[in-house]
Amino acid sequence: MRFDQPVPLTTIAQLIGAELTGNTTALATGINEIHKVEPGDLAFVDHPKYYDTCIQSAASFIIINKRTEFPEGKALLIVDEPFEAYLKIVNFYRPFAPSMQSVSTTAIIGEGTIVMPGAYIGNHVQLGSNCVIHPNVTILDHCVIGNNVIIQAGTVIGSDAFYYNKKTNRDIHYKKMASCGRVVIESDVEIGANCTIDRGVSADTVIGAGTKMDNLVHIGHDTMVGRNCLFAGQVGIAGATTIEDNVILWGQVGVSKTLTIGKDAVVYAQSGVKDTIAGGKVYFGSPVEDAREKMKELVWIKRIPQLWDKVMEGRKK
Amino acid sequence: MRFDQPVPLTTIAQLIGAELTGNTTALATGINEIHKVEPGDLAFVDHPKYYDTCIQSAASFIIINKRTEFPEGKALLIVDEPFEAYLKIVNFYRPFAPSMQSVSTTAIIGEGTIVMPGAYIGNHVQLGSNCVIHPNVTILDHCVIGNNVIIQAGTVIGSDAFYYNKKTNRDIHYKKMASCGRVVIESDVEIGANCTIDRGVSADTVIGAGTKMDNLVHIGHDTMVGRNCLFAGQVGIAGATTIEDNVILWGQVGVSKTLTIGKDAVVYAQSGVKDTIAGGKVYFGSPVEDAREKMKELVWIKRIPQLWDKVMEGRKK
Amino acid sequence: MRFDQPVPLTTIAQLIGAELTGNTTALATGINEIHKVEPGDLAFVDHPKYYDTCIQSAASFIIINKRTEFPEGKALLIVDEPFEAYLKIVNFYRPFAPSMQSVSTTAIIGEGTIVMPGAYIGNHVQLGSNCVIHPNVTILDHCVIGNNVIIQAGTVIGSDAFYYNKKTNRDIHYKKMASCGRVVIESDVEIGANCTIDRGVSADTVIGAGTKMDNLVHIGHDTMVGRNCLFAGQVGIAGATTIEDNVILWGQVGVSKTLTIGKDAVVYAQSGVKDTIAGGKVYFGSPVEDAREKMKELVWIKRIPQLWDKVMEGRKK
Repeated sequence: MRFDQPVPLTTIAQLIGAELTGNTTALATGINEIHKVEPGDLAFVDHPKYYDTCIQSAASFIIINKRTEFPEGKALLIVDEPFEAYLKIVNFYRPFAPSMQSVSTTAIIGEGTIVMPGAYIGNHVQLGSNCVIHPNVTILDHCVIGNNVIIQAGTVIGSDAFYYNKKTNRDIHYKKMASCGRVVIESDVEIGANCTIDRGVSADTVIGAGTKMDNLVHIGHDTMVGRNCLFAGQVGIAGATTIEDNVILWGQVGVSKTLTIGKDAVVYAQSGVKDTIAGGKVYFGSPVEDAREKMKELVWIKRIPQLWDKVMEGRKK
Repeated sequence: MRFDQPVPLTTIAQLIGAELTGNTTALATGINEIHKVEPGDLAFVDHPKYYDTCIQSAASFIIINKRTEFPEGKALLIVDEPFEAYLKIVNFYRPFAPSMQSVSTTAIIGEGTIVMPGAYIGNHVQLGSNCVIHPNVTILDHCVIGNNVIIQAGTVIGSDAFYYNKKTNRDIHYKKMASCGRVVIESDVEIGANCTIDRGVSADTVIGAGTKMDNLVHIGHDTMVGRNCLFAGQVGIAGATTIEDNVILWGQVGVSKTLTIGKDAVVYAQSGVKDTIAGGKVYFGSPVEDAREKMKELVWIKRIPQLWDKVMEGRKK
Repeated sequence: MRFDQPVPLTTIAQLIGAELTGNTTALATGINEIHKVEPGDLAFVDHPKYYDTCIQSAASFIIINKRTEFPEGKALLIVDEPFEAYLKIVNFYRPFAPSMQSVSTTAIIGEGTIVMPGAYIGNHVQLGSNCVIHPNVTILDHCVIGNNVIIQAGTVIGSDAFYYNKKTNRDIHYKKMASCGRVVIESDVEIGANCTIDRGVSADTVIGAGTKMDNLVHIGHDTMVGRNCLFAGQVGIAGATTIEDNVILWGQVGVSKTLTIGKDAVVYAQSGVKDTIAGGKVYFGSPVEDAREKMKELVWIKRIPQLWDKVMEGRKK
């Protein structure tokens, strides 16, 4: 998330009750999770295992629960509970303040774009020109939609990430990671009915130009979908995953989080992608394998009884 | 279903044209299906195979199509078509009388709870405090929601059960079991976008405190979900199933009806649970097995060609 | 699609800039895709491989990109880009002109039918009598619903087909096939919450009388579903498929396009149907096989380690 304008680090430190050390006169331009940080960003870390990664990342200002060494020009904001500090900053600079109008007066709607009855367009949403937003679609705050985009009925754009911090102090419970990112849908995208596309936790979920989706498709937070992909009905893609250009996923395919599907890959129906797969190939199975290998495997399985007979026959001799 | 106030058995008998025998002066406090009955309840049975189970159940008053023996203090209501009698009672005491307002004036909405545009809140719904009901959510009659509950856009709470009586008199057809139960969602539950949670047929579908669900999740009628469970995107759970505390179901998992998943169980993505599974373990596959065993199995399958070669080689010798 | 009234071929030819040859004084009664054509229809073909099929089909008038021979009484409309010509005709005779009212004044609503708040009923929709249309349902233009139909909350009827023409001139991209067909839902059908049923591309998607669907079910364009079928939660059926009467599909079953599932077939949960399967049988697996055979196969797989041991033991001897 980018702040509307740069914020002095001292203001942030005061907000979260942090001890500030290092480049104390700097301005923070945004706050992001560790895998999306840019210079000028705040980031947080609370586990010693990740201290180094965070401090050495592009992030300039580290919210951390231990005084430690850090590079020149950066700053540490030391607090007991970095995750709580992150939530406090996000909730302060991007508070949940939903529009109670069906179409927010703060939304920008391009020429020739049709918003049908029952659609909800949240605050600071940008819709390009010549789009069709069908009935009962929900587009939540800060989402950005290009030109010639069609969103069919009942679809939800910008729902919160399914992203929780597990707490085990007394019993197991889950604390929600506040979503302050956006969904960015590029031009010429078409999305089916009753789909759901979650906003990024701190960055953007992006659907590349020309991509088409069927109905009941789910796209997780911070996922990057390339250009001219095709996703058939009931495909589900988890968070922070990268789908490159021209990828085709057939019906009910499931894709796990934080992996990459290479350009021009095709995944057959009901397959499950649990690790990164190379582009330019055809896949099948749960978990997926090369489709032709998987088909052969199915034939081999059918030969087990025959193999059993041969072995038994051999033993009799 | 509980009646608003106890009803004399004689009134019920008159409504359904039943011959009443036994404790004829008693009051009925509710009506339920056989697997959910409590003392004071009416229940119905029409198949000789289940006569005994029903008569010996906790139900006090049995709607039945045959005169038979029964314990002291209970009563029989004898009719030709017990299922039709059940429907008549349910439709009389809980008629379908939907609110034609977006937010019913009979709904109770707690302090600090936000109901966003396009949401429908039915009759006699109770919403706790500090909830967020996102746009285009539908919450149907009699559902009960705790405090700090978040329901994301497009989700439906309290849809009717997928529960039909098969009739084969002339041709096969299906007669709907009227749903008169509720959905009860405890505090601190968060439900994603475009999910569906069916009401109980006669009792409650319950989502335990602290449980979190991703988008496009389906929960069937009368299912009991424990505390602090996590269900990822596109999980589907059939009716009358029990999910104990802290269970984690990854994306696109399917769970069949009337079974139990034990506490702390984890089920990997795209798996199918068709029978009861013990808690504290990790599962994979369709149908599920112990995840490690299933992974080994996948390796064994890849060895079939090698095994084939060995056997062929052996035969040559 | 049927035109509101027959259109002179010369008018069509002028609209699309076609050279007209053959029965030039005829009237066209409609336009359809090649697999749904009837006498009086226009159809288009742009690939030499399909010229013959199209010219010999029931279609009377062929939009084609080459002058060729054709039967007496028919006509050719010769253009450079038949697909573009098709789009031009569809967009002219069935323009996208959505109602901006929640319930269109051009909709016909039968006696005793309840349309709940937040539902959208498009232009020229016909609803029979004694239906219940739950909150936030969307029924798009020209759809036809019978009597005693229940459509639960959030469901979308008549969304556009997921049907694109692949173009590879510069890079891969997809051009939408305009949907001008309808959804026809016969009497006594019940559809769950948050389902999606796509309209036909040029013809009808049909749901047969008495069929019942659970939540989050997806039905593709031009699919024909028979009478008294049962589809459990999260079933997905692709386009132009035929499901005969009394078919039961359990949860999360996926069905591919343009195939047939025979009468009385039962398909177990999470199975994948990729080719036509015969009626009267029970199926399981992805891809499906006879359920009993598939179950045996699962047992055989478990015997591989034992088989391996026997072979190794044999080799030692």
